[in-house]
Order: sequence, then structure tokens, then C-alpha cells
Amino acid sequence: MIRVGIVGGTGYTGAELLRLLVQHPQARLAVITSRAEAGQPVAELFPHLRGHLDLSFSEPDIELLATCDLVFFATPNGTAMRMVPELLAQGVRVIDLAADFRLKDPAEWERWYGMPHGCPELLAEAVYGLPEVNRAAIRTARLVANPGCYPTAITLGFLPLVESGAIDPTWLIADAKSGTSGAGRKAEIGLLMAEVGESFKAYAVSGHRHLPEILQNLRLFAGAEVDLTFVPHLVPMIRGIEATLYARLINEGQDLLGLYQDRYAGEPFVDVMPRGTPDTRSVRGSNHCRIAVARQGRTVIVQAVIDNLVKGAAGQAIQNMNLMFGCNEGLGLNTLALLP
Amino acid sequence: MIRVGIVGGTGYTGAELLRLLVQHPQARLAVITSRAEAGQPVAELFPHLRGHLDLSFSEPDIELLATCDLVFFATPNGTAMRMVPELLAQGVRVIDLAADFRLKDPAEWERWYGMPHGCPELLAEAVYGLPEVNRAAIRTARLVANPGCYPTAITLGFLPLVESGAIDPTWLIADAKSGTSGAGRKAEIGLLMAEVGESFKAYAVSGHRHLPEILQNLRLFAGAEVDLTFVPHLVPMIRGIEATLYARLINEGQDLLGLYQDRYAGEPFVDVMPRGTPDTRSVRGSNHCRIAVARQGRTVIVQAVIDNLVKGAAGQAIQNMNLMFGCNEGLGLNTLALLP
Amino acid sequence: MIRVGIVGGTGYTGAELLRLLVQHPQARLAVITSRAEAGQPVAELFPHLRGHLDLSFSEPDIELLATCDLVFFATPNGTAMRMVPELLAQGVRVIDLAADFRLKDPAEWERWYGMPHGCPELLAEAVYGLPEVNRAAIRTARLVANPGCYPTAITLGFLPLVESGAIDPTWLIADAKSGTSGAGRKAEIGLLMAEVGESFKAYAVSGHRHLPEILQNLRLFAGAEVDLTFVPHLVPMIRGIEATLYARLINEGQDLLGLYQDRYAGEPFVDVMPRGTPDTRSVRGSNHCRIAVARQGRTVIVQAVIDNLVKGAAGQAIQNMNLMFGCNEGLGLNTLALLP
Amino acid sequence: MIRVGIVGGTGYTGAELLRLLVQHPQARLAVITSRAEAGQPVAELFPHLRGHLDLSFSEPDIELLATCDLVFFATPNGTAMRMVPELLAQGVRVIDLAADFRLKDPAEWERWYGMPHGCPELLAEAVYGLPEVNRAAIRTARLVANPGCYPTAITLGFLPLVESGAIDPTWLIADAKSGTSGAGRKAEIGLLMAEVGESFKAYAVSGHRHLPEILQNLRLFAGAEVDLTFVPHLVPMIRGIEATLYARLINEGQDLLGLYQDRYAGEPFVDVMPRGTPDTRSVRGSNHCRIAVARQGRTVIVQAVIDNLVKGAAGQAIQNMNLMFGCNEGLGLNTLALLP
Repeated sequence: MIRVGIVGGTGYTGAELLRLLVQHPQARLAVITSRAEAGQPVAELFPHLRGHLDLSFSEPDIELLATCDLVFFATPNGTAMRMVPELLAQGVRVIDLAADFRLKDPAEWERWYGMPHGCPELLAEAVYGLPEVNRAAIRTARLVANPGCYPTAITLGFLPLVESGAIDPTWLIADAKSGTSGAGRKAEIGLLMAEVGESFKAYAVSGHRHLPEILQNLRLFAGAEVDLTFVPHLVPMIRGIEATLYARLINEGQDLLGLYQDRYAGEPFVDVMPRGTPDTRSVRGSNHCRIAVARQGRTVIVQAVIDNLVKGAAGQAIQNMNLMFGCNEGLGLNTLALLP
Repeated sequence: MIRVGIVGGTGYTGAELLRLLVQHPQARLAVITSRAEAGQPVAELFPHLRGHLDLSFSEPDIELLATCDLVFFATPNGTAMRMVPELLAQGVRVIDLAADFRLKDPAEWERWYGMPHGCPELLAEAVYGLPEVNRAAIRTARLVANPGCYPTAITLGFLPLVESGAIDPTWLIADAKSGTSGAGRKAEIGLLMAEVGESFKAYAVSGHRHLPEILQNLRLFAGAEVDLTFVPHLVPMIRGIEATLYARLINEGQDLLGLYQDRYAGEPFVDVMPRGTPDTRSVRGSNHCRIAVARQGRTVIVQAVIDNLVKGAAGQAIQNMNLMFGCNEGLGLNTLALLP
Repeated sequence: MIRVGIVGGTGYTGAELLRLLVQHPQARLAVITSRAEAGQPVAELFPHLRGHLDLSFSEPDIELLATCDLVFFATPNGTAMRMVPELLAQGVRVIDLAADFRLKDPAEWERWYGMPHGCPELLAEAVYGLPEVNRAAIRTARLVANPGCYPTAITLGFLPLVESGAIDPTWLIADAKSGTSGAGRKAEIGLLMAEVGESFKAYAVSGHRHLPEILQNLRLFAGAEVDLTFVPHLVPMIRGIEATLYARLINEGQDLLGLYQDRYAGEPFVDVMPRGTPDTRSVRGSNHCRIAVARQGRTVIVQAVIDNLVKGAAGQAIQNMNLMFGCNEGLGLNTLALLP
Repeated sequence: MIRVGIVGGTGYTGAELLRLLVQHPQARLAVITSRAEAGQPVAELFPHLRGHLDLSFSEPDIELLATCDLVFFATPNGTAMRMVPELLAQGVRVIDLAADFRLKDPAEWERWYGMPHGCPELLAEAVYGLPEVNRAAIRTARLVANPGCYPTAITLGFLPLVESGAIDPTWLIADAKSGTSGAGRKAEIGLLMAEVGESFKAYAVSGHRHLPEILQNLRLFAGAEVDLTFVPHLVPMIRGIEATLYARLINEGQDLLGLYQDRYAGEPFVDVMPRGTPDTRSVRGSNHCRIAVARQGRTVIVQAVIDNLVKGAAGQAIQNMNLMFGCNEGLGLNTLALLP
């Protein structure tokens, strides 16, 4: 049994970790911390866990967390970097679901997150937790930087095109759409049902924090400079990300479906559809990324969908945990999407 | 392994049976029929099953179905009654998710469903599949009539009050609200998102087909005449039923919480909340019925929520299957609600 | 032209007043105050007003407000009572959309709103602004207490039954459902789309603040003691209230449709449907209350729908303004519901 | 008074025409036809019109329609072309809200709509009813082809860039998103709330019928060949289109905001936002197109929102009617967006 701790378990990412860990046959949730809710039973805050989890929130405490084999950070950006060095020193492995260890360049972190990086010495060691490209390194990692939700969908969507050199990497467009849970469980007027229901809009049109993470990925896989325009949008639904990606083919005759099927053959959580378009509900609650490819003339159009809280956050973290602890990669992640 | 067949697998109840059966460790789905989709792979119609189910729809065929240990009917009302006698004769056990065998009185059937009953001789034998009241009979039943969605929520909500004689049974009010999946996967203008989204209404205000089923239940448990007013409403959401029930206490000092906790102690799928109100999302995708009780003066107010497709249909059917075949009652039904 | 001021124009009630006033041919919005947004153009906060309203929020200031003929308070409960006496003294008429002047008994106010009433001497004078019962008094009122949203729907729904003595007033049930805009434009986790979307629940089951207001109305019209159970629910939609009301007929042969049609003949904003059930979308954006009546045995079932922000708040306030200033009662309120 | 007829008034476009015409001071709706609903009062089908419209559907009849000054066709594609010649011959002017007269090349029509054009001789005369580019011609037109919803948003969004030569017209991307009312009031499973609610997807990824219409527009204004990739998406909401448009600037220093403000100065129904991003709710129920521009490096990002049923259909048709009959262009179109 893997003895697991969660720091910051009151947001949506934390709640989703709870759902998946409670059902995981090889993990046991031992500690969950929340400064604001310390002392309260978890199932009071999240009634869907009543009868499934008999645990209360505790104060964040390194001693307590150090009793775990693995600690997940489901905290706001900038929190994990303050606690991770001590945990690693005590032999605890860490998966950070925030952005603290995703960018390799601390200057980029500071530019996009508005604060100096508190722990730049760990950036080189941290493994970017996208199993489809980093499986081997994840297995042995002490510290995994779990990818962002948009970067997961967009990277998996562009990967076969960029790796293979099938497209011109200097004009890529990623038009991505997310349900509102992606913005977190925060008391903000802009996230009220009466504000975002029955409406649709773009946001962060001049530059979103996930852009440098996506660029870092694509540059690595392209082995070349990449120019990407990324625009996120807010969809009046709770879960799901759809990314529609545009690129220009070098060779108009390229076998796109074959390219994608070959790249993702054997991947347990990437499904390439031979026809049709994926809808986000087909992955609601599931750890799958479902992809379809089409073209209009020389333009490739990739559609990739994930559940932002599962493959885009907590599910991918469990997938990484399974790799780190030698479990079957899909253990505890077999639940089907909830449809309708 | 229980060899299972489904007749009529293209509706929401059928899709939910598929989701639960694919994940069930002791059942193997062998046959699924649909006249309209015969020959088509199931995962073409329901992409969330891609990679999880390698089966095609076949024509409804008694021979084929007779190879199963158990056949579920997820068909329109009036279909099962035409095929069930032959299946029983061949030793196949049956769970009907439609209304065909729910009402004991064939005249009541004819009155509410507008056609003569095709198989009245089986009505006495058919066991009403509500485990919380009929567990023993279900275990040995050949034919189980799976309860309707409203009747499940309303019966479980009223049961402790009615059984115990704590309230006056001659004026009960059930104000129930359902998501739109309860109306089925049917091409009707009245169910379009542009018609039912962002709106709320009552329907069938003068009498809904589930009324006689609820009355049959309550009369049985009350051992007395019951007068119930039942009004269903349509909620702009996909899954979930909430029933707010009103009754008048005989004894104003009645310990309501204790009454409910005692009645449902040990029930694996009924959760009585000691405080707070249940929301439908707390059971989304789960087989639980979650209940709270409150009062205003002498009026008891019960709130009961279920997922209409799970405890209100397919999940309860699996619970019944488990009982019929000697499995642990909750086998394959442990997935937590998907929240948010 | 009526020179109009609004105190507290940044909530949904304020926004709706703006929408209606901008389109009103006899009113001119001269002042709108908001402490938090002082100095900001209104159309920056509410882009749908761009090009229609060239006005900025100003600090709440009695001098400025005293230049108006009429001031609307769209403030939290307890604010208007501190400013109204001074405005009345300066000859300004007032419509308060909060609860400050709705309850005649200051002890009831204190019990339900948790603070002593700051201005009990005006309670007797304040006119309850429900035109269907108080039209004459509203015309000459200095101070109008605009009704709450639930009380508007429930009072209009019960009124013909209670006034006529057709039902037993000692067991009335009001099961009411509201869209989330009714809870206001407040930064609360409980109102996020990810919390209230795709879910349904009751709330305030043991007693909601609107209960004493409804009771005060019904007792007045019944001329007798009234016993009402009132349970509100939250619907995953933005606008709309539906109230399903239950009462027991004295005389089972009562002509219900005739009773309602007679009572509301000539009422410009109450529509009694001869058949069918009203849905909330049929009044979305409109000032109408639409009502249908049905029965099951001796139980009358009334369904009443309003838009909580229009007939339940700002629209009714404009209707009252029209009466107070001798305009046609429906002036500026003719826009049809937005359907679909 | 303009005497108006509507052919095919039972869809969402027809319903929206009704809403706008009932409130129009210079138009009188005299005839509305529907084969399926002939004889039924309009307000039975659309209860929000109760008390506002006392008219019944009649059989489609040329004699009757010929008594009108203007006939709107809100019919499926391919219907208007069979009736329009006769109406024009009798001196009736026509606005077709379907696609029959939008494409100038009958071969293109046949390719995209799958049937030969029944009236190619009128294609040259038909005026494309986008006032922002064709105002003068619309005033004197006998036959106006009202633009499609996607083409309206995308054409207005690209127009200043394409006309001015500020961008490279050979790689344009239009990623557009629509609420479900855009698909019409049709009994299709794919439009049920339980299918499209809480989900998001692309559709018609290899080519949508609106593509040739958009290309025809852009080529005309560019005076050059244009290469456009257009992908529509379905949003879980009822009303609204958002189009996010991508193009590459010729001159990186281009003043984008100035370009848009200059082009649309004086346009009553195009609003260029100096900052922020437009959301679809800011035009819900309104005839405005609201636009913002941004950039990432050399990529221009235009966001354009409309209400698909108003500026994208019925509202634009009324705007065209006003021009054709010498009314103020905005007459009857002044209602503000309904927000929230």
C-alpha cells in the first residue's frame, strides 16, 4: 500500500484526487491538510464522500506529511516550492499539481507568475509528468511536475505533428475551451453561474500562463523554434476541455490518421478516433484524452478532449503515482466516462 | 460469471447498464439487442465505451437471449411483456426496467398505459425490485420489476414515516423534480436543449404514470388508505431527481432523524444526513439515495435525492442482479459520485 | 420626465433596473451610486449598456440623491432604512427593493434579519408594492416596499384561493424553485457554476426569510389564521421562479379556472392560462406572472411563474413607479419574454 | 404601416421575428403560415406571446401572402426559391432568412445544399442583406438574402482586416462557437439537452455549408484570393455565437483598434470594445455585434459575438426591412441585451 498525503484538499483538484484515491486498490489516504478546514471531517465538506472516507482535514505539518510515501500538492501556485525540499530530504516523493516545477527556466516562472521562484535548484531534477513522453523518467522521479490542463490537451494534440516534422512549427494555433471548474473553487463573481452560465467568451487573449509551458513542450519535441498562438475560452459547463488545433502540412498527402494511430498505439489513455469528432462528455470523469484529426486543404485540424480534472489534473497525477510506485499504470483509473 | 443480455440498449437506461456492467467483476455482457442499430458496434453509438466493450448490437432474438443467465429489458413500456414468458420458460431470469410488471392490478396498467396487459398471469409472481423492502424475495425471484425513478425516491423518502405510522397518510404531498435524461433518448422537440435549458416547469400536473406505482407501495407499507398528491417537474440538468415530501406529524415531538437512521441502518445505498440538505450532484453517477428530514411546525419535510439513471434505474437493476445471483449486493456499484 | 436615482446599482436587481430605465420613455436616470465602483462608467461594469448609458457610479450622497424625484434602493437589507427618512424629508419618493419596509412588525424584522429595525416609525406608512392588491395606495405613496421575489409568485398564486375562502387556510404548502440570480451578485463559493450547475437542491428548509412576508400577505387576504409550509429550492438556471402551491378545497366542485380568471381580469401583468403548464422561460425578461391551476382529488395545485429579476424585483418596481407618477402602469414594461 | 407576412413561423427564427415584429411600431403582422400548425393560434405554440398577438397560423397561400408589402421566409433551405418569383411578380418584397439566395453561383449552391437551384435567374438581383456593406443596395432591393449566422459574425470580424489589406488573406482561421438554437427547432436526438448539455464539441470539421458564403464575402472585400479554415463548435447554451478569428499581420505595427473603430464608426449595430473581451451574453436578445481585437506577436486575434437569432437572423432581417421601407434603421431593435 502506498501511504498518501494531500496538501490542500479543498479545491476541485483535491476533491478529484480524493475520489480517485478512495477507489484505488493500492493507495491509502493517510493525511489531508487544509489550513482553513483543519479539524473538519472531509465528508462534511464533500457529502458525496459520506461513508467512503473517514478522515478529517489537518493543519499542514511537515512531520505528519513525512510519514507518507507520496505527497500530492493541490495547492495554489507558489505553495509547493516552500515545502517540497524538506519533504524530499525526508525521503518523501512528491507530485505537484500546481505550476511550481513545470517551467525549467526560473525567469519564465517569474515573468508569468509574478514572483521569484523559491526553489530553482530543483527545477532541473523535476520530471514533467506527461507519461506519453516521459514514462521512464517518471518511474524513478522523486519530484513530478504534473502538467497543466490546457498543456496536456494541446501537447498531446500537437505531439505527432510536431515530433514527425509533418507541419510548419512556426504558425500553430491552439483555440482551447474549458469548463468552469478549471478556474478552481474560488469565491469570485466572475465564476458565478449567473455570470458564466448561458454565455461564452475568450479570455487571457493576449497571453495565458499556460503558454510558456506548452511552448516548452513543443520546442522540445520539435527540436526547432515554434510559434504558437494560444487563446483559451470559458464554456458554460463544469468539466471538460476541448482544444481545436490548427497547423499547416508540409506534405499535403500526409496520412494523418496513421500518424496519430502509430504514435499512440499502446498508450492506455490516448484514444485516436478513426472518424467522428470527440465531445468532452465522452471523457467526463475518465482519464482518457480522445483525439480526432481532419483537414481543410493544407490545414490540419486536430480536436483533442480531456476532462480537465482527470487527465488534466488528478487522474494524470494518479497515473504518475502508479508509474512511480510500480503499479499497473491504469490502476484505479478504469472508471468509464459518465454519459449522459 | 453471470452471462448477461440486454434488450434495447440504445436509450439512457441501456447506456447506463452498459457502463455498470462493463465495470462489474462478476458479469459478462454477452448479448445486446437493438432493432434499429443491429450490426453496429456499441462503441460507435457510445464513444465513451471505445476500448472497453467489443460488442455489436444484434437483432432481438429469443434463441440468442436464451443463452444468458439474466436478461435486462431496457425497452419502452409494453415490450418486455411480449418476450418474458418465453425467456422464463427457457430458464432465463429477467429484470425489467420498464413498467410492465410493476403494477399488480392489470386494470391499473391499462388505465395508465393505455393498452391491455399482455401477460397478467405473471403479475403476481413478479417481485418489485426495491431491495430496501423486498430483499429476500428478490434473491429468489425469476422476474424482477425494477422500480421507476420517481417511485424509488418518493417511496424511500416516505417509507419510515408511513411504516411507523408517524404521520397522517391521508394527505401526502410529493413535489418531485427530475433532470431531462429521465424522459429518455427520444427525438422530441420538447426535450431539446433550446426548449428545456434555462427553464423550469411542472408537467403531468393532473396525474403522472408513476402515481399508481407510488400509491401501491405506500398503501402496502401503511397498511391503510393513502392519499397522495404527486407533481413532477423538469429541471434544466441531465441527471438527478430531488423529491421534496410533505406530511403532517401525528406527534409533534417525533424524533425524525432517529426514525430515519434506524430504518436505514445497514442499508448500503441509503444515506441519512444528520444535517444539511442533499443536492442531486452528491449522488451523480452513484447508486445512493441520500435523505434529509426537517420540519416546520407539524409538517415534516423530507428531501430525497437519487441519480435517476442509477438508483432510479440501471444501478438498482445491478443491485437486484447481485441479490439474485448471490453476489455482494454492492458489487460493481462502488463508484463515487462525480462532483463537481 | 421622472428624474430617477438608484442607490446600489451593481447587483443583479440594479442591473435590471438599469435595463428597464434606459428603455423607459418617461424616466431619466440621473444618479447611480456605488461605494465600491464610484467613478467607474456603468457601461464598463455592464458592457451590454455600452452606447445606451453614459453615466458613472458616484458615491452615495444624500444631496445628490435629493435632486431626484424618485430613488430606488437596490441595496442589501438594512441599508435603505438609514437613508430613507432624510430623502422623504427632502420630498423625494422612494421605492425600496430590499426587505427593510416589507414587514409591518419590527420584531418580526429583527427575528428574521438579525438586527434591530433602524426606522420603525415608517413601517406603518410604507405601502407594500404589489399592484394587484394595493394599486390605489401605491399611487399616492411616498415610500413603497417592493415585494420579495418568492412572496410575489406565492402571493399572486394563492390570492384567489385565500381571498375567496375556497380552501382551508391552515395547511398550505408552497414548494418554490428559483434560478441562481435570486441569490444576488455575490462572491460566494456556493453560487459558482461548478457548485450549482447540473444540480438541484432545497435550502433553508427549516425557515426562509421570505416566510413572514408571505404569511403577512396571506393572513391579510384570508382575514384568518394561515398555516403555510414554504420550502425554496435552487435551480441550475439564471432567471426564473416557479412556485407549485398546494391547498385543500372546501368544495370539491369549485370552478378554479373561473375563480382565477375573474380575480385577474384586467390585470396587465397576470396571465391565467386556460390549459397547459407555465414554464419560467415564458416570462424570461418579462414583467408577467403566468399562472395555471389544476387539481388531484380535493387538492388544488397552482403553478405560478415569474422572472425573479423583473416581476420579482425591478420590473415590479418600475410598475410601482408608473403608478406613483401617473404614467400608464405598463409603460416601459412591454418587452416580450426572450424565448428560446 | 408595413403589412408583413411570415412563411414558416414555427422555428426559432420565426419565433424571434414574431417577438421583434410584435414590438415594432411601423410593422403589422398580417399573415403567418405553417402547414403543420395551420389553424392553431400562434400564442398556443408560443405562450410568451399570449396577450400580445391574436393571430393563427394559416396554410401557405400565395394569394394571402400577396396582400402583404413584405414577406419573410423563415423556412428550411430550398423552400423560398419555389415561392419567391410569384410574390415578386405581384409586387411583394421579400427577405429570405434561409440560404436560397445567398450564394451567387448556383453550382456552389448545388454542391453544398445537395439540390439544383430552383431559381437561378434571381441570384444576380438578390441583395446580400448585410447592412454594414450593402446598405444602399438593400434600400431599393426587391429581394434580400439575409446572411447566415456564422457568416455575419465572421464577416464583420474579418472585414476591416481584409478590406484594408492589413493581413495576409491566404491563411485565415475562423474558430466559431454557437449555441444550440442555431441548429433549429427540430426533433433530433443530437440536440437533446441530455446530449448537448454539459459537453462541447466541434462539428462539420471537414467543411460546413456556411464556408462558401463566408468565402464569397471575404473574396469580394479583399479583391484577392482568400484561404480560410472554418471550424464550427456547439456550446451548451441556447443563444449566442462567438467567433475567434486568426490572421497574420503584414505590418506588425498596425493600429488595430483604430482600424476597427474607423471602419465601424457610425454603424448602429457594431460595437468595438476598446479593451476587454466580449461575451455572448452581452448581446443576448440584442441586434449588436460586439468586437474586440488583440494580438500575440504577428497574429491578430479578433473576437466577435452576436446573438445568432437576432443579428444572426431575425434582427438583421428587421434591420433590412427598416432600410427597405425607409424607416430608421434601428426601429424596433432598441431592446437591450438581457443580462444576466
